[in-house]
Amino acid sequence: MLIEAVCLIIMMSVSLIYRENPLPFLYTIIILALLGGILYLITRSANVYSSRGGFVSVMFSWIVLAAFGALPFYFNGGFGNYINCLFEATSGFTTTGATILTEISILPRGILMWRSFTHFIGGMGILVLSSAILPASGNRAHYLMQAEVPGPTSDKLVPSLAKSSKILYTIYCALTASMCVALLIAGLPLYDSLCVAFSTAGTGGFSVLNNSIAGYNSVAVNLITSVFMLMFSINFTVYFLILTGKIKRALKSEELRFFLGLVAVSTLIIGANIYSKYGNVFECFVNSFFVVSSTISTTGFTIVDYNLWPAISHSLIVIIMFCGACAGSTGGGIKSSRIVMTFKSIVREIKQIIHPNSVNIIRLDGKAVSNDVIKSVLRFVCAFFAITFFGTFLVSVDNFDFTTNFTAILSCMSNVGPGLGAVGPASNFAGFSGFSKVVMTLCMLIGRLEIFPILIFFSPSAWKKV
Amino acid sequence: MLIEAVCLIIMMSVSLIYRENPLPFLYTIIILALLGGILYLITRSANVYSSRGGFVSVMFSWIVLAAFGALPFYFNGGFGNYINCLFEATSGFTTTGATILTEISILPRGILMWRSFTHFIGGMGILVLSSAILPASGNRAHYLMQAEVPGPTSDKLVPSLAKSSKILYTIYCALTASMCVALLIAGLPLYDSLCVAFSTAGTGGFSVLNNSIAGYNSVAVNLITSVFMLMFSINFTVYFLILTGKIKRALKSEELRFFLGLVAVSTLIIGANIYSKYGNVFECFVNSFFVVSSTISTTGFTIVDYNLWPAISHSLIVIIMFCGACAGSTGGGIKSSRIVMTFKSIVREIKQIIHPNSVNIIRLDGKAVSNDVIKSVLRFVCAFFAITFFGTFLVSVDNFDFTTNFTAILSCMSNVGPGLGAVGPASNFAGFSGFSKVVMTLCMLIGRLEIFPILIFFSPSAWKKV
Repeated sequence: MLIEAVCLIIMMSVSLIYRENPLPFLYTIIILALLGGILYLITRSANVYSSRGGFVSVMFSWIVLAAFGALPFYFNGGFGNYINCLFEATSGFTTTGATILTEISILPRGILMWRSFTHFIGGMGILVLSSAILPASGNRAHYLMQAEVPGPTSDKLVPSLAKSSKILYTIYCALTASMCVALLIAGLPLYDSLCVAFSTAGTGGFSVLNNSIAGYNSVAVNLITSVFMLMFSINFTVYFLILTGKIKRALKSEELRFFLGLVAVSTLIIGANIYSKYGNVFECFVNSFFVVSSTISTTGFTIVDYNLWPAISHSLIVIIMFCGACAGSTGGGIKSSRIVMTFKSIVREIKQIIHPNSVNIIRLDGKAVSNDVIKSVLRFVCAFFAITFFGTFLVSVDNFDFTTNFTAILSCMSNVGPGLGAVGPASNFAGFSGFSKVVMTLCMLIGRLEIFPILIFFSPSAWKKV
Repeated sequence: MLIEAVCLIIMMSVSLIYRENPLPFLYTIIILALLGGILYLITRSANVYSSRGGFVSVMFSWIVLAAFGALPFYFNGGFGNYINCLFEATSGFTTTGATILTEISILPRGILMWRSFTHFIGGMGILVLSSAILPASGNRAHYLMQAEVPGPTSDKLVPSLAKSSKILYTIYCALTASMCVALLIAGLPLYDSLCVAFSTAGTGGFSVLNNSIAGYNSVAVNLITSVFMLMFSINFTVYFLILTGKIKRALKSEELRFFLGLVAVSTLIIGANIYSKYGNVFECFVNSFFVVSSTISTTGFTIVDYNLWPAISHSLIVIIMFCGACAGSTGGGIKSSRIVMTFKSIVREIKQIIHPNSVNIIRLDGKAVSNDVIKSVLRFVCAFFAITFFGTFLVSVDNFDFTTNFTAILSCMSNVGPGLGAVGPASNFAGFSGFSKVVMTLCMLIGRLEIFPILIFFSPSAWKKV
């Protein structure tokens, strides 16, 4: 809460620079400082952590972050009731980018920068989660960490948590700064460059314009954004390896190869599929590459309404929504490493039926993956599908069509932003009821925290005294 | 092929009774008798079986059954090209019930009874699969069998294969006969009673009328069909236990309880959801119970166009399409036992994160389920989802909307029949291209044979000489 207050002080200065009303920020800062200060004084000696304690705290801190981060939106008044504000803030911190706003650019610049900045904070939080907190919370979490950051690097970065976090943050900030500079060179104003860079860094997708990146009407901006969306959805240990000169090992990562292969194949298929709509190879490439990059990185920026594209593109967009980014990045979804392990596991099943006595080992990047990790991965994938369909059922109360309900929930689970149908790129989530927005808010958290921390939070045995 | 020829001789007699053209049957019988006879003479001494040999033969026999079973449709001429006929025959033998026909009742009665009878044969085939062939083909297949027919009964029925098959067939035929008698009492003609009973027995869904069961316009017929659809989708070992006096043990089956619970909850929710459409509790119950029973049993009969119902019903229909019937029945889908084990496995993951050192055992009906079975189940569920979405992508070439493409493939994978959108209960699959029909034909086989036999069939190492 105190860190959030500091962030809000920066945003308040942005407000003051543009001579806007600083009160929405000031109120929130006072509330955060008071409550946070009191809680700090009470709990600073309490430092006992258990595995379940770790999970519950992580979950709790995300809820607190979103609940108070929503206050500037609420005090501003342009977002409607508090559920809308909470939806928007959760969408920000979970780096989803789904919005309930129709008119965006009329809002104060300070508020809009805070909205984009929540993505940047969220992205940082995910890097902490996958590099610091999870391995700290016991043996089981270490398995999760292995599933998250697989390959030869996981054991290299883990031992010194503080150091590995610092490395990840440095890469994160350096990439964000590079993107900002690239956008400035492409002709964007500083304010827009910063906001787009913050949103891209967290693979979020909030924009300061009504029509997202399309509003800049610049092929250079489109291409820069496409490339950086992909860069932020690659496992950050790849950059670490490249920086330390282990380029060969970095490029041998099976997850990276699968991810880039999927991007290339999807771009080609969608590009060919929409050729009749544009009749120009370069335009097809730019549009297809942007949409694939935006969807698979789970950012959700838009330059075109893909609702108007043929069905092949729609199905492929749904598939890459499920797949999502690489583990150890700021992107969401099931994650490429899990997809690779699931496929390998299915192939293993076939081989075992044919040769019942063959040895049952699955390898990733040449290293054997333990049975427990494989089972965790399979359970994760099953749970992801199950929750997506259950969520679709819940939000059906608002009587949108099946495609809208399903892709809205999938989009929240994978932290993408837009979906198909009534939640397409040209639309938003304003039409849903308060109940559905709460369900979606939960789905964003479930997807972002990779399911199990949330399920633990709601499991009675996590709250029992030992 | 020889058995199929015998079945076709019976159907030809039906044709002759109604003074219809017997030639479509006669031609097929001659082809089957000639080819089947030659192959029998060549291969009768070849009796060497291996695990993979068993899987490949099962797959091959289903393809042969469908490929030749399609010939009467082809020679009749009312079904269009051979791909249409193959689609219809595969839909029959896999007990899917998806049709490419718009005008059904104008076709000869012999042909229509053959169409319904393919469901009856298919249902028998599935009982063979899950009781005779699978346990015979090695250790690994025994695991599959355990996953298929879980609980205290699997080891009781397995030792004597011939005997257990005989028991299952007796139950199957007795249930079919009872249904036929019940329909006769309800006022249906003998021909219709037989056809409806054949279709229900295999949980297929082909009807001799254009508008399925709705065409009989009888509440009694609707209720009888609803109840029998459910009865054919319950694990047949439950009936075996009841017949041998072990009623308590039969009712304690966790799969049965989950399945009936899901039916009850779904009927209630959909009934409440459509109340405003009908305004009559009994009518809501009949419609809701019929649709739930038809969908979860993966039969696919219709008495009402649920496309016109609200979104809640649609989402729930999709969910129960995925779930499907009980293992060891003639129904399709993922199967209740797998759903139960998947949920237990996810709950186990949560418990293990909270208590990292707890013992990792999952029980079904009080018995511990081995880790290999759990892994098989999780792999199956993941593969089911993956193939469904990949199939959706493939049939998108015909540019129907996402809901249509997705539910069409899901319906084929789960062997249901109708889906939502353009493949809804009031519609059919005629609008799809030949390519899509081939994809769907494959999906029906993949779903029916529970994925892995088909994947083995297409895996190069299954065809290598040892």
